[in-house]
Amino acid sequence: MQYGDRDGAIGFLIGAENRGLNTMFFMMNQARLAVGVQGVAIAERATQHAETYARERRQGAKFGGKPGEMVAIIQHADIRRSLLHMKAMTQASRMICLATAGEIDVAHLSSDAGHRAAGASRGALLTPVAKAFSTDASIEVASIGVQIHGGMGFIEETGAAQYLRDARILPIYEGTNGIQAIDLVMRKLPLEGGAVVRAYIDDLSRMVGEVAASNQPELVRVAEKLGAAVKALAFATQWMGEQLVSNPEMALASATPYLRLFGIAAGGSYLGRSAAAAFREGDGEGRPVMLARYFAENVSTEAPGLAETVTGGAEAVLAATPDRLVS
Amino acid sequence: MQYGDRDGAIGFLIGAENRGLNTMFFMMNQARLAVGVQGVAIAERATQHAETYARERRQGAKFGGKPGEMVAIIQHADIRRSLLHMKAMTQASRMICLATAGEIDVAHLSSDAGHRAAGASRGALLTPVAKAFSTDASIEVASIGVQIHGGMGFIEETGAAQYLRDARILPIYEGTNGIQAIDLVMRKLPLEGGAVVRAYIDDLSRMVGEVAASNQPELVRVAEKLGAAVKALAFATQWMGEQLVSNPEMALASATPYLRLFGIAAGGSYLGRSAAAAFREGDGEGRPVMLARYFAENVSTEAPGLAETVTGGAEAVLAATPDRLVS
Repeated sequence: MQYGDRDGAIGFLIGAENRGLNTMFFMMNQARLAVGVQGVAIAERATQHAETYARERRQGAKFGGKPGEMVAIIQHADIRRSLLHMKAMTQASRMICLATAGEIDVAHLSSDAGHRAAGASRGALLTPVAKAFSTDASIEVASIGVQIHGGMGFIEETGAAQYLRDARILPIYEGTNGIQAIDLVMRKLPLEGGAVVRAYIDDLSRMVGEVAASNQPELVRVAEKLGAAVKALAFATQWMGEQLVSNPEMALASATPYLRLFGIAAGGSYLGRSAAAAFREGDGEGRPVMLARYFAENVSTEAPGLAETVTGGAEAVLAATPDRLVS
Repeated sequence: MQYGDRDGAIGFLIGAENRGLNTMFFMMNQARLAVGVQGVAIAERATQHAETYARERRQGAKFGGKPGEMVAIIQHADIRRSLLHMKAMTQASRMICLATAGEIDVAHLSSDAGHRAAGASRGALLTPVAKAFSTDASIEVASIGVQIHGGMGFIEETGAAQYLRDARILPIYEGTNGIQAIDLVMRKLPLEGGAVVRAYIDDLSRMVGEVAASNQPELVRVAEKLGAAVKALAFATQWMGEQLVSNPEMALASATPYLRLFGIAAGGSYLGRSAAAAFREGDGEGRPVMLARYFAENVSTEAPGLAETVTGGAEAVLAATPDRLVS
């Protein structure tokens, strides 16, 4: 693109003079949530595509079935794990984006000034998580989608690879996900002296409590895993608060794993809440319980280790100065 | 490709009649390690490329530096974390592949029949890990390489995206990584009644003990994290052995996270051993210690959660029957 190489170019002032960066950030903040939603959309499309293929493609005998009788690959446990992972990560991302959008709606539309302010603060807290967690997840999901297609996934004909290519830009534009993590840690955690993030984590704990209170044996175990993830987030958040006072570069060095931990704790809590609601409505066998259970027992399990990485891994990062990093 | 649509095609028998599948697997087993090494090669190239870019590209002020003074992005903590992750994952993969190749060499070349047999068994155990862990890592590493390039990473001119495209086929061909995980769990863990894997895990523990025995404060903490990963592997291996007897489909459902756990425990132990050796030679500041420390404190931390997923997540996978998995 080149402007003005023949007859000069005319610039128009948009908004007040010398307020350009603020105006740009108004657009950017809207765009961040929108990019998170792009991640959800691509992940959903990749998942539907892979599931359709897994129901058609016949390969291998079913475990315990007749030898030599080929079944659709969706029968195989490893493919079911793959599809569940795609669905659970997509749904967790969707719920984080919806929660963020809900807060922004409250900030704009509530008739109560206190609610508007609270919505604005929480929307600001969640926006970097909605953007970064959802777009990282979209790559993970689209990559599993290619894998489920096997050799066909690497062939353009199936369309599986296009989702991965399309997803790959999302963690880059409108502020890289590294920048989102830094925004979360350096600008959003300190909001109102940390009260915004503490109130949010309390709300996640309440949601997990609701899951435990359902008294369904399946959900009690789910609540235990989700609760451990929220505790891990609370622990890492406390550590972050201390670093912001004493040594902010440590917080910067752990910002990326902290954001993932945040997304896992939040996404799991939303999935748990929706499973508890489904149980109350008599649907203990449907999608909400299936996804909450998978997520709690196979993804939330990452959370305590992430808290360990956040709080114990930053020194190793800062010790690796550019000189030492020589290949 | 079409054969014989005009004048018929002539087939040649390679090897003995009705031994074709065995002959093919002879090729395939060699190829599996070779594909793991392809993963290492692509990861290494992506890392060098990203590091070069990170030393050139200037963006943002250094933390604590003069505001407005742009520095090379390798100065930023989050980019250093990214580069360390690329280097540590690549080196861990390389060491697993080298260990596998070493065992296969012993199997072919040792003058001692017992050593040949032991090398063959351990080479068989490690081959699926070398193939799958290294190629999964190559995708992770190449994707971070794109990310370090920012918007330029999505532009073909830089070459960063090509590594990710090239890496993406590796978990698919010569047996998908899901098949490698199943091979590890169903065929390799039962070798010699489990004695092969138990002896290997004992060797990993010994390597970690060597790290702890170095009495370097930096390495004591490294040994603690590496040791927790090996313990997690031992625990998950024990569980796998029980499932293989009572309910092998549970083992199939957890095969993929088990293989990753295996790779993290093994790769960390090799990195630790090389850090201990570097310390003995007076090199406490160089690459081996830097990578072992990063890996132990930021990657090995995944291991206990993976063991929890392996042993506690399979039921949720098997409960998701194809009927329930409907979108």
